[in-house]
Amino acid sequence: MSTTYAYAATDAQSKLAPFEFQRRDLREHDVQMEVLFCGVCHSDLHQARNEWKNTIFPVVPGHEIVGRVTNVGSQVTKYKVGQLVGVGCLVDSCRTCPSCQEGLEQYCENGFVGTYNGNDKQTGAVTYGGYSTQLVVDEEFVLRVPENLDPAGVAPLLCAGITLYSPLRTWGAGPGKKVGVVGLGGLGHMGVKIAHAMGAHVVLFTTSASKIEDAKRLGADEVVISKNPAEMEAHVNSFDLIVNTVAAQHDLNPFINLLKRDGTLTLVGAPEHDHPSPQVFNLIMKRRRLAGSLIGGIAETQEMLDFCGKHGITSDIEMIQMQQINEAYERMLKSDVKYRFVIDLDSLRK
Amino acid sequence: MSTTYAYAATDAQSKLAPFEFQRRDLREHDVQMEVLFCGVCHSDLHQARNEWKNTIFPVVPGHEIVGRVTNVGSQVTKYKVGQLVGVGCLVDSCRTCPSCQEGLEQYCENGFVGTYNGNDKQTGAVTYGGYSTQLVVDEEFVLRVPENLDPAGVAPLLCAGITLYSPLRTWGAGPGKKVGVVGLGGLGHMGVKIAHAMGAHVVLFTTSASKIEDAKRLGADEVVISKNPAEMEAHVNSFDLIVNTVAAQHDLNPFINLLKRDGTLTLVGAPEHDHPSPQVFNLIMKRRRLAGSLIGGIAETQEMLDFCGKHGITSDIEMIQMQQINEAYERMLKSDVKYRFVIDLDSLRK
Repeated sequence: MSTTYAYAATDAQSKLAPFEFQRRDLREHDVQMEVLFCGVCHSDLHQARNEWKNTIFPVVPGHEIVGRVTNVGSQVTKYKVGQLVGVGCLVDSCRTCPSCQEGLEQYCENGFVGTYNGNDKQTGAVTYGGYSTQLVVDEEFVLRVPENLDPAGVAPLLCAGITLYSPLRTWGAGPGKKVGVVGLGGLGHMGVKIAHAMGAHVVLFTTSASKIEDAKRLGADEVVISKNPAEMEAHVNSFDLIVNTVAAQHDLNPFINLLKRDGTLTLVGAPEHDHPSPQVFNLIMKRRRLAGSLIGGIAETQEMLDFCGKHGITSDIEMIQMQQINEAYERMLKSDVKYRFVIDLDSLRK
Repeated sequence: MSTTYAYAATDAQSKLAPFEFQRRDLREHDVQMEVLFCGVCHSDLHQARNEWKNTIFPVVPGHEIVGRVTNVGSQVTKYKVGQLVGVGCLVDSCRTCPSCQEGLEQYCENGFVGTYNGNDKQTGAVTYGGYSTQLVVDEEFVLRVPENLDPAGVAPLLCAGITLYSPLRTWGAGPGKKVGVVGLGGLGHMGVKIAHAMGAHVVLFTTSASKIEDAKRLGADEVVISKNPAEMEAHVNSFDLIVNTVAAQHDLNPFINLLKRDGTLTLVGAPEHDHPSPQVFNLIMKRRRLAGSLIGGIAETQEMLDFCGKHGITSDIEMIQMQQINEAYERMLKSDVKYRFVIDLDSLRK
């Protein structure tokens, strides 16, 4: 057992505050790491405030984790001390269902174990995330981090990055494909970078003209102000894929209308209240599809990290100290971040 | 020019009544046929009553047509006099757009020409459908009808059959796949027969216990009463594909919940008022898809007819005389038909 310094929410109303606990003793296949950086995901805030009604308190959020290996269990073969590694949203799954067998652990039929607010498969203990100085995770759920990338900028790839990479790969983004990304936030800015690196023609949809310049800098070939019907009309029936990152309730039909035959609108953000009904006629007349996608499996997350290493892709980040997390949450609620807060865990080390 | 005897609606309020007109003189690639049988599709009624607000009166409905070739144009190579042939929902398209080039004329980017209530590409003349004694159609939009099948039972394959066959093929119905069909009407009963012949495990969803026996006779392996939550719950996360033929507004979520990961719910009926919004969470958590599908292209329609010939599949029909069409419409509105009315055009011949 080793003492870990962290920040936790003790109930839905309180701010995050210092919290100490013990990480488990290493199991045979465990990797222990010093956490260097942890991205701040909107779902951290949702869960700290129990907005999904399933939080087990105290909760230590954080699932965009980059660290360095400090110890390994006796049977670990994949990692060694000193190696730069990552951990995303999952730390375990049943490993036997069809989804796990296909490497799609995020869709584990028996439920994956979340990096925080989950229950350890062996002991039932509640999992604590990356807002902490160290972490212990089974090697099968640890990722290799390309050494050429800034490790702080890598952290958000573990959730925001894979959340966009997976649908872009699933629905075939690449050369000759026209791909839309709706929303330029933590998720959307990763979508623009990754889709551009995949060789697709990338169109960023935003409601804010102030984001045009930044979107182009990030790799968008075109930027469309989605509340402008004339701009939207110019793209009717032309998209192979649109990945929609906007979690607020909105009308999907203007985007469905932009899909060509067999095109897909994939939702990666779940709004608190469902979007209005899509028009069935617009689906039928061009065999269009509306879909959802959830993060990615371990193999695909590794593929994404390797892809980002090859293409020099990291998240645009704003670094904070652990002590600034409550202020960061307030700014995140106002979308006042370009494009992801990342916690420097050195700020917690004694 | 040759006089054709037909039934037409002259306005949205009137019943269908006798109507005479001239079919066009044969063009080089035209096939002239004596219409033997024409199925009665719900869209005939919608258009006769101008419920889609786009009817050009007088309208001669009918797009489930089986006939025998009586003459061919000078350049026709595919058909000869005496051959049994079919015509479905399309009689022309632009033939040059990507969808036409791929043999998906139903999604023609420039708009296909409907068998009735369409406009001829060359003259702009309004097209008249199969509630008539003869028909003239370009050979590229004429289908070969297997000689081993009852031609009256073949007629509904040209719309109802292909409307189900196409999504079943697109989304891979076959051995090892669990396929649902929602609704046991003209469309649904074809779906059950075809999916069964494809080798899938077929589950028919109905709200009416009275349909259980018939569904099993038609080829369903299981029948689920969809308004019974316990019956539905037993099938959660288990379907590869569900084809939903119900055009009335209803909640899609109970069916989306039955899809396994990457499963698709395909809508082939467009309700007058859109279905309530699907829950985004249920799409995201299993990468499920909601899609639409529209009839089929010419090549796929021929493939479907050949498939039906091989498997001995026709529609279950109730034969009527042309003079009974208005009564048939009233019965169709009450779903009082098993499972498709087919007009015997001999009833119109002088």
